[in-house]
Amino acid sequence: MVNTPERLAQQMAFIIEADKLKSIFRQSYISDKTRRENDAEHSWHLALMAITLFEHANDPQLDLLKILRMVIIHDIVEIDAGDTYIYDEEHKKDQERRERLAADRLFGLLPEDQAIEFRALWDEFELGESAEARFAKAIDRLHPMLLNYLADGKTWLEHGVVATQVREINQKIERGSASLWTYAQGLIQNAIQSGILPAK
Amino acid sequence: MVNTPERLAQQMAFIIEADKLKSIFRQSYISDKTRRENDAEHSWHLALMAITLFEHANDPQLDLLKILRMVIIHDIVEIDAGDTYIYDEEHKKDQERRERLAADRLFGLLPEDQAIEFRALWDEFELGESAEARFAKAIDRLHPMLLNYLADGKTWLEHGVVATQVREINQKIERGSASLWTYAQGLIQNAIQSGILPAK
Repeated sequence: MVNTPERLAQQMAFIIEADKLKSIFRQSYISDKTRRENDAEHSWHLALMAITLFEHANDPQLDLLKILRMVIIHDIVEIDAGDTYIYDEEHKKDQERRERLAADRLFGLLPEDQAIEFRALWDEFELGESAEARFAKAIDRLHPMLLNYLADGKTWLEHGVVATQVREINQKIERGSASLWTYAQGLIQNAIQSGILPAK
Repeated sequence: MVNTPERLAQQMAFIIEADKLKSIFRQSYISDKTRRENDAEHSWHLALMAITLFEHANDPQLDLLKILRMVIIHDIVEIDAGDTYIYDEEHKKDQERRERLAADRLFGLLPEDQAIEFRALWDEFELGESAEARFAKAIDRLHPMLLNYLADGKTWLEHGVVATQVREINQKIERGSASLWTYAQGLIQNAIQSGILPAK
């Protein structure tokens, strides 16, 4: 590379490595059911949901910029750690360890101050306790439910997932947004009525 | 749908329609050259570039939240209008008309206040005059150059694009960030030296 200042070179190395997120595929299908969705698309769709649905957060005084920075980077660790399906209890056991190692390497590509800043944002998201993290996690759960509903329950049916599990896993949406949880419960009810999600 | 309040129903209709952006493919390849990139992935990558490279804006007092909102929605019009290759002079002639019609329909799915707000953001981006729009446009130009460089100039070679054109089209990067334009010129120079971009 032509004589790039070290700081910019580190930032570009991170941006280039992040291109791999476009090749990490999730369980969810895009709504036309032609193929699975990848993490980069998912992260963009979450960002769009954040700027559109922000007013539905339980606490409307949230920092939207922080939420956006969180959702933009929240899945980057999956470049190394892979996608872990939320209903896969076996694979979830060592998820935390795998993702922490990935965070060390990937955010470590950045200049030190940014590495610390991005890692802190990711840790805050993972912990899920701050108001911003609760809202970011709420839309991160609502999004695959919505795609699955639009794709006639394709992923639920493939994995034998039933309504009791969907409710249990997704009830945390309420911690970020009571009104989006009401909407999500409507989706579940409609999915059961349409026969694409077993009531169990 | 179970009894969703009208405002939330409109917001969700917009979010659901936006899923189609994942099926609008660009000329650029992802860096491993296995396939072309789609607009949703591109928009996410721009958002990542914005939060990482923000300090290189000519005016560091910019509103990063506004830049993120711009890049998240900037290509949504392509759901109706399709992607227009930046070196395709013929197809660019009616691009503005096609994209304005698309903006009317797509942002029009939102509740009226948000439709006005998102449309104003998109208009500001398109106009490219505000400091935020200049920076957003700078990274929107740098991004495909970078991917092309990483993909050994695949798109340039497919379309017979030469360095003079790349310099002419991309020199506007300087209006948003002088240091990113210096970096971009280094990419062009390296591409010529590597034989993946004819000097002309």
